[in-house]
Amino acid sequence: MPLSGAKGFTEEELKRYIQGDPDLKAKIPGDASTWSVKEVGDGNINFVFIVEGGEGRGMVVKQALPYVRCIGESWPLTADRAMFETTALVDGHEMCPDHVPQVYKFDKKVSAIFMEYLAPPNIILRYGLIDGVVYLHLADCMSTFLAATLFKSSLFALPSAEYRKKLAFYADNSPMCELTEQVIFTDPYGDAFHNRHNSPYLDADVADLRRDAAAKDAISELKAKFCTQAQALLHGDLHTGSVMVTQDTVSVIDPEFAFYGPMGFDIGAFISNLFLAFFASDGHETGQGEREEHRAWLIACCRDVWNLFQNKFLKMWNEKCDSSAYPELLFGAKVQDSDGARRICQETFMRQVFEDTLGFAGAKMIRRIVGVAHVQDMDRIEDAKVRADCEKRALKFGKRLLIGRATFESIEEVVSAASELRRSSSSGQG
Amino acid sequence: MPLSGAKGFTEEELKRYIQGDPDLKAKIPGDASTWSVKEVGDGNINFVFIVEGGEGRGMVVKQALPYVRCIGESWPLTADRAMFETTALVDGHEMCPDHVPQVYKFDKKVSAIFMEYLAPPNIILRYGLIDGVVYLHLADCMSTFLAATLFKSSLFALPSAEYRKKLAFYADNSPMCELTEQVIFTDPYGDAFHNRHNSPYLDADVADLRRDAAAKDAISELKAKFCTQAQALLHGDLHTGSVMVTQDTVSVIDPEFAFYGPMGFDIGAFISNLFLAFFASDGHETGQGEREEHRAWLIACCRDVWNLFQNKFLKMWNEKCDSSAYPELLFGAKVQDSDGARRICQETFMRQVFEDTLGFAGAKMIRRIVGVAHVQDMDRIEDAKVRADCEKRALKFGKRLLIGRATFESIEEVVSAASELRRSSSSGQG
Ligand SMILES: Nc1ncnc2c1ncn2[C@@H]1O[C@H](COP(=O)(O)OP(=O)(O)O)[C@@H](O)[C@H]1O
Ligand SMILES: Nc1ncnc2c1ncn2[C@@H]1O[C@H](COP(=O)(O)OP(=O)(O)O)[C@@H](O)[C@H]1O
Ligand SMILES: [Mg+2]
Ligand SMILES: [Mg+2]
Ligand SMILES: [Mg+2]
Ligand SMILES: [Mg+2]
Ligand SMILES: [Mg+2]
Repeated sequence: MPLSGAKGFTEEELKRYIQGDPDLKAKIPGDASTWSVKEVGDGNINFVFIVEGGEGRGMVVKQALPYVRCIGESWPLTADRAMFETTALVDGHEMCPDHVPQVYKFDKKVSAIFMEYLAPPNIILRYGLIDGVVYLHLADCMSTFLAATLFKSSLFALPSAEYRKKLAFYADNSPMCELTEQVIFTDPYGDAFHNRHNSPYLDADVADLRRDAAAKDAISELKAKFCTQAQALLHGDLHTGSVMVTQDTVSVIDPEFAFYGPMGFDIGAFISNLFLAFFASDGHETGQGEREEHRAWLIACCRDVWNLFQNKFLKMWNEKCDSSAYPELLFGAKVQDSDGARRICQETFMRQVFEDTLGFAGAKMIRRIVGVAHVQDMDRIEDAKVRADCEKRALKFGKRLLIGRATFESIEEVVSAASELRRSSSSGQG
Repeated sequence: MPLSGAKGFTEEELKRYIQGDPDLKAKIPGDASTWSVKEVGDGNINFVFIVEGGEGRGMVVKQALPYVRCIGESWPLTADRAMFETTALVDGHEMCPDHVPQVYKFDKKVSAIFMEYLAPPNIILRYGLIDGVVYLHLADCMSTFLAATLFKSSLFALPSAEYRKKLAFYADNSPMCELTEQVIFTDPYGDAFHNRHNSPYLDADVADLRRDAAAKDAISELKAKFCTQAQALLHGDLHTGSVMVTQDTVSVIDPEFAFYGPMGFDIGAFISNLFLAFFASDGHETGQGEREEHRAWLIACCRDVWNLFQNKFLKMWNEKCDSSAYPELLFGAKVQDSDGARRICQETFMRQVFEDTLGFAGAKMIRRIVGVAHVQDMDRIEDAKVRADCEKRALKFGKRLLIGRATFESIEEVVSAASELRRSSSSGQG
């Protein structure tokens, strides 16, 4: 059944496609005539269909069209991204099976990924956070995902030849990297056509940012890291809209931006979205202080994601006595003082990842306030003035992380600074 | 004419090969029966033939066999390196025609590169330095080569998509990178089979190095940079044996280790070999102080290579108002305070390249004293004790650069430290 990739499946076409593939058909209970097909894509870029049979079981079909969905055909984007997303899902599932859905099939001709359906009560984490829901297992699961995928795809686990093969493969996901370069590392700091901000409230802040030499220096350094530092296979778009949760499970979806880059980019992406939720929460209160507990949890979650990531990563490191990065010849048990040497290396390494994490987190907060793609956490605050207050704080904190990333001693200092900034700048305001 | 790549050309086979290719044949004057063929390979890895006709004109044929020449078939190495060397020579010649010889032909079947012959009086720079020759144009030419190739192959000049294509291409030169990882970043810091040192004189120094946690921390950080930081297309083996000179010209040959890596790796490689010549020079004196002037020039040359590299690189940066790394939207003439912002970015960038340069320079000095491949500058000092004194100073300075790379404020401080170290530790010694 030849389908034009540029058009996308109709519901009927999709049903027929699945019926034509026995392996896929077997995943959905009941007769095809009883299946329901819904397009549920709420992301910015692609189309996502849920095909459900009886008993709420079914599959998800994600289809990439050769443009950016939320902008339209005027912003073309290669449909190859679906191939990279597939490979990244498969790699991710292998490295961290508990937190990455399974892929059943990829069909390049129609740029469609057929994958495991994360059925209700799974919801997108961002919406849970907007509603003030607490997920006590979140930091544990996300730190597991981060530590596993970043460690196992890097020179900590792979022989360097294998690492370079993977790096070269994902380097072809270049259009997605270019998009990131533009929307995260370039446009927010200049007068770019697609930029949006809460005007007139943030006009002055935006003008300030565009002539802020320290911000440009920092973002340029981070952009260079993003483009040139191939530390590990990254998800590449790890915001809270790329995570589905229940009270027991956490699944990471949507790695279409996957490529080899700096570890801090993924960690920072996730943490920055927790901070955005934190600064937005004032705007979702119907009574003052209503969200205090939720905010305290968000702060703890930021802190725990980092600390648990660090612990889990170092545990894997300690258990692997030989790697391309830290070979046995230098760090093995038989080598004099090798434990001490390894500990010093671990401090050096983690300090750098920590700074990168903060810098990228700052960059990602900033771009969500003044760039093309905003977050629902803020956008759902109806009163533009209230929203502006939340956005200003987030922007201020983002700049502080970006520019001051080397000045924070610990994650404790970082989360305290966030709480402090919110408190001091929201006093005197209802 | 099918030739076994694993065997290498005989002189007769090579003559016949060239006669069979009209374009090649036309480059060599006279009748083939009058041509001379000499194997002149003095490098560690490959075979190099000079085919000369009348008037001293001819061509060079470099052939890669699937093992390391100086070790033998017990150390296999892919002959693919000749393809990467060819591409790197072609890329290099395009970026910097004055300092990279021209390639006439590459034949993959016999892993042979046919290229421009750098006829006498061209000699390998290392031999000139050992003989105490001064090359007043060296710093100017080498800084031109470094600035041109590093700038033009990076995100300063290439659109990011093109950059990633080249990066992915050169990532396949992985066996050569693995060799570097082993012989520069791993073996010298452990008890590796192929290591050599001037025993018993340096036994204690070697033992110290192998339990030096700070050295292991530094070398691990630099190894990670080498493997993961794809800043620019590097030569990858830029020691003074990869440079041919006359009193008027400088040509860079032998880029078989070419890959995308940190800029400081190439700059550091070259500078470290000047420092090795500097510390070796005491061992070549037949009368005390005889080489004082040569040493002063070597020191000035180190300083000038860095300073001129920096000036030339920044000049290209200033002249290019739009790049993937520093886009016009942020740094263009129309943007408020953009000059100031660019200057800050330039300081940040150059400081990092400077530190990398020192670190890699240190690593390369160390590996030439205690690793598998030493330098003639030292090896030609016949008296083992005299040689040991020179080697100890070089090793000490190498460690200082490696571990203390962040503590030097300027290249002036670096070269002063080298002079100072030599003076203080050679006093009381004839
Ligand atoms: N495996 C899945 N199970 C259930 N729902 C999914 C699944 N994958 C995607 N979705 C739904 O589709 C939406 C868009 O998917 P996503 O992969 O994020 O697409 P985009 O790349 O366009 O952002 C998600 O927010 C989620 O609601
Ligand atoms: N283009 C050339 N012109 C003249 N001599 C050359 C040329 N290329 C190589 N040689 C000579 O051959 C030697 C070995 O070449 P090189 O490329 O360094 O090989 P290897 O990879 O084995 O080190 C050089 O030291 C130099 O003497
Ligand atoms: Mg999405
Ligand atoms: Mg997406
Ligand atoms: Mg050579
Ligand atoms: Mg890289
Ligand atoms: Mg060579």
